[in-house]
Amino acid sequence: MADKQDERKVTPRSQDFAAWYNDIVLRAELADYSPVRGCIVFRPDGFAVWEALRDELDRRIKKTGARNAYFPLFIPQSFLRKEAQHVKGFAPEVAVVTRGGGEELEEPLIVRPTSETIINHMFGQWIHSYRDLPMMVNQWCNVVRWEMRTRLFLRTTEFLWQEGHTAHATPQEAERETLTMLEVYRAFVEDFLAIPLLVGRKSAAERFPGAVETYTIEGMMGDGRALQCGTSHFLGQNFAKPFEIKYLDEQNQLQYVWQTSWGVSTRLLGAIVMVHGDDQGLRLPPAVASTQAVIVPIFRKPEEGERVIATAREIQRTLENGGVRVRLDSREGMTPGFKFNDWEMRGVPIRIEIGPRDVAAGEVVLARRDRKGPEAKSKVAFAEIGSRVPAVLDQIQKSLYEQALAMMRSEIREFANYEDLRRQMEGEGGGGFASVYWCGKPECETRIREETKATCRAIPLDQSVPPGTCVVCGASALERAFFAKSY
Amino acid sequence: MADKQDERKVTPRSQDFAAWYNDIVLRAELADYSPVRGCIVFRPDGFAVWEALRDELDRRIKKTGARNAYFPLFIPQSFLRKEAQHVKGFAPEVAVVTRGGGEELEEPLIVRPTSETIINHMFGQWIHSYRDLPMMVNQWCNVVRWEMRTRLFLRTTEFLWQEGHTAHATPQEAERETLTMLEVYRAFVEDFLAIPLLVGRKSAAERFPGAVETYTIEGMMGDGRALQCGTSHFLGQNFAKPFEIKYLDEQNQLQYVWQTSWGVSTRLLGAIVMVHGDDQGLRLPPAVASTQAVIVPIFRKPEEGERVIATAREIQRTLENGGVRVRLDSREGMTPGFKFNDWEMRGVPIRIEIGPRDVAAGEVVLARRDRKGPEAKSKVAFAEIGSRVPAVLDQIQKSLYEQALAMMRSEIREFANYEDLRRQMEGEGGGGFASVYWCGKPECETRIREETKATCRAIPLDQSVPPGTCVVCGASALERAFFAKSY
Repeated sequence: MADKQDERKVTPRSQDFAAWYNDIVLRAELADYSPVRGCIVFRPDGFAVWEALRDELDRRIKKTGARNAYFPLFIPQSFLRKEAQHVKGFAPEVAVVTRGGGEELEEPLIVRPTSETIINHMFGQWIHSYRDLPMMVNQWCNVVRWEMRTRLFLRTTEFLWQEGHTAHATPQEAERETLTMLEVYRAFVEDFLAIPLLVGRKSAAERFPGAVETYTIEGMMGDGRALQCGTSHFLGQNFAKPFEIKYLDEQNQLQYVWQTSWGVSTRLLGAIVMVHGDDQGLRLPPAVASTQAVIVPIFRKPEEGERVIATAREIQRTLENGGVRVRLDSREGMTPGFKFNDWEMRGVPIRIEIGPRDVAAGEVVLARRDRKGPEAKSKVAFAEIGSRVPAVLDQIQKSLYEQALAMMRSEIREFANYEDLRRQMEGEGGGGFASVYWCGKPECETRIREETKATCRAIPLDQSVPPGTCVVCGASALERAFFAKSY
Repeated sequence: MADKQDERKVTPRSQDFAAWYNDIVLRAELADYSPVRGCIVFRPDGFAVWEALRDELDRRIKKTGARNAYFPLFIPQSFLRKEAQHVKGFAPEVAVVTRGGGEELEEPLIVRPTSETIINHMFGQWIHSYRDLPMMVNQWCNVVRWEMRTRLFLRTTEFLWQEGHTAHATPQEAERETLTMLEVYRAFVEDFLAIPLLVGRKSAAERFPGAVETYTIEGMMGDGRALQCGTSHFLGQNFAKPFEIKYLDEQNQLQYVWQTSWGVSTRLLGAIVMVHGDDQGLRLPPAVASTQAVIVPIFRKPEEGERVIATAREIQRTLENGGVRVRLDSREGMTPGFKFNDWEMRGVPIRIEIGPRDVAAGEVVLARRDRKGPEAKSKVAFAEIGSRVPAVLDQIQKSLYEQALAMMRSEIREFANYEDLRRQMEGEGGGGFASVYWCGKPECETRIREETKATCRAIPLDQSVPPGTCVVCGASALERAFFAKSY
């Protein structure tokens, strides 16, 4: 319903970030609400971004040696109970199937909130010898967590994700795998989605239920709130023991395996909107845009139109041959201005305008979605289009990252004083990443969380800081940590 | 556990087809049983076939203009009830979520057995004008149908599939779409999976619940039983009316849309096994094989091994550069004979053997999985390998199809006499496609089904047959239909 898009202005981002976000997701037709509580519909334009993202990440995951597999949607209730922290973390938010084929089930089935239990049950069947290790599988699937307050893409009852699960002979190897995947995620999100990140480990309070250590990549959204973009867990032997995953080592001794799990989800689609979007709509990094360039022909008289469209078709072919995902918008009964707004809303990185005078002059107007005002537009001669458009796409990918990096940097502040930290986090406008010395005691973390609503997002891995004093209790502290309000 | 594979012989196909089938699926590590009733695990080797199949079919579906989207897993119970035939067909086999987030749900949620209802609810929100038509979406997802008797891939409580859903302005356009997708499926299954098919429409009794007309592609399995490999439905306005999917036509009149839906599922993996497999294991059509050629180096002394493996690596590079998916099996501590059996079991189309004498002679032995005995092997000079292997892969793709076609043809029999038909279907060995005149009356169809266990699989679309008499009642009949016992 492109023709309805202009009926109502998008809420300005500066005025109400949450309303702006919903407007963009709905108006760019990325997703829609559904009649099922907390579940959304991924519309074709949104799902195309997910497909681009998934295909690229899938290639990168496979390169590390993991292979895709698929495990059951349903998990016997008793499985979830085998790991104490795991059941504590997930039991309150599961959906439960109690009837099947018209009868009550003897044992209710959980709709998977994550698949550690069922996958590790199978690992127990498949792993016998050190020769079976490492075992590395990944699955792309839907998961369900019964959320009380939902938000498009960021928190939904059902979402899509990939979850990797690996088993290794030694703790060192498993820890290395955990960090390898953390780096795969970091590089992927920064390079491909143009979202800069902070990287680190989680505090004990923020760990995945059942993990020995959780590592995270954290992004900064346009409103100063952090978003966890992916996590990688070192599980130790917490699942290996209850699920009896043992192997005969080279000395013929039975040993438990050491494990990892790691995942990213469709909430990354929300991150793309919240990091790159503006008041005109979405801005898609060229790497994930299913349409990277759109050609809009401009003319009044039909006899002009023929020439303009013929030329536009040629340009389209040139770009297609060069591997650009390009589209010609020859829709009738819409003004060029309407089309401009429409494609800006949908986040297409490059718009190419061509009218009768451009045809005569042998040039087009190229408009970049990453810039505003006169700077956004330039003239490009026909002969240059084939080389210029891919080059500008590269520039846009980099410039969106640079813009986001500048924004994130402006939202990182060091605090030595607890009152300053508290003041920064107060109110709607407050936020950002607070970098503070923290002694590591849960009480201090709890106090920050309760009084400022900021949680510990990440403790950087490389700490080359001099010893300091905890921002809360003043005790000596060896590490800085990032706190932020988050989604 | 490759080293366990030889512990026990595969059941010969001729001795017990069902046991043979399970042996192959488990031993080729395509799938495994799971602890969840009726659900299976797709292991990496099986899932890789699904990924190859899915990627290719996805390309073909997108070419027709449909776009991927994703709709909720859960469907409100009331939705299923809106179409009378639909609820009758699916209600007995659904899984029901009655608890979520620790509380009883006010309205239970159905785990989707198919998504007509939820998708058409959304179509009702999105379609307003003739300019919104045709609307064509496809989704790849999991679905759940509570099956009493399950069988690996062919009938499982949860399975994976794609389901396409379209809405059109006219019945003619919707019917054309139904047949377009039937042809996409036929070409895909015959060309890519090398499985020959019979094509036709279903009888009223065999129609999809809620469809006006169902079209089908039917394959013939190695035991004489038919397998429905995909269906395409013309839904008329059966869903448009209860879900209120209306559009304003060019004359500004409100009209209901006309619809289709179509799908294929992971049961196609079962079809690949049952059509192409033999007593040595799986035989994968090269198009879907994630390993198309495996190189097995053969040597005794380590000093020989170095030279042999260096040459094998070169051959591997040559083939990789030529786009062949090739693997070098340099596993230690296993005999060449063991490796041969292992790769035969896994269905790899081409095996390349290379030993010290081959290195000296500048040639390799190429063994084709589609042939048996001395015919399967030939010598290929190093310089020829790069061109020969792709050519042989093409030949194998064709030869597997030809072998399957010969088998299917030998299983098609015409019957003018009901007793002959009944005798053919009797007993374990009986089966095949019976081509018979059928008057079209449900009573005659029911009698065949009840007395022979054969159902009407397909009524061919192009009937250039003279009028005849019904094989059951002797009344005049204008069409022939295919009956068969089926999975």
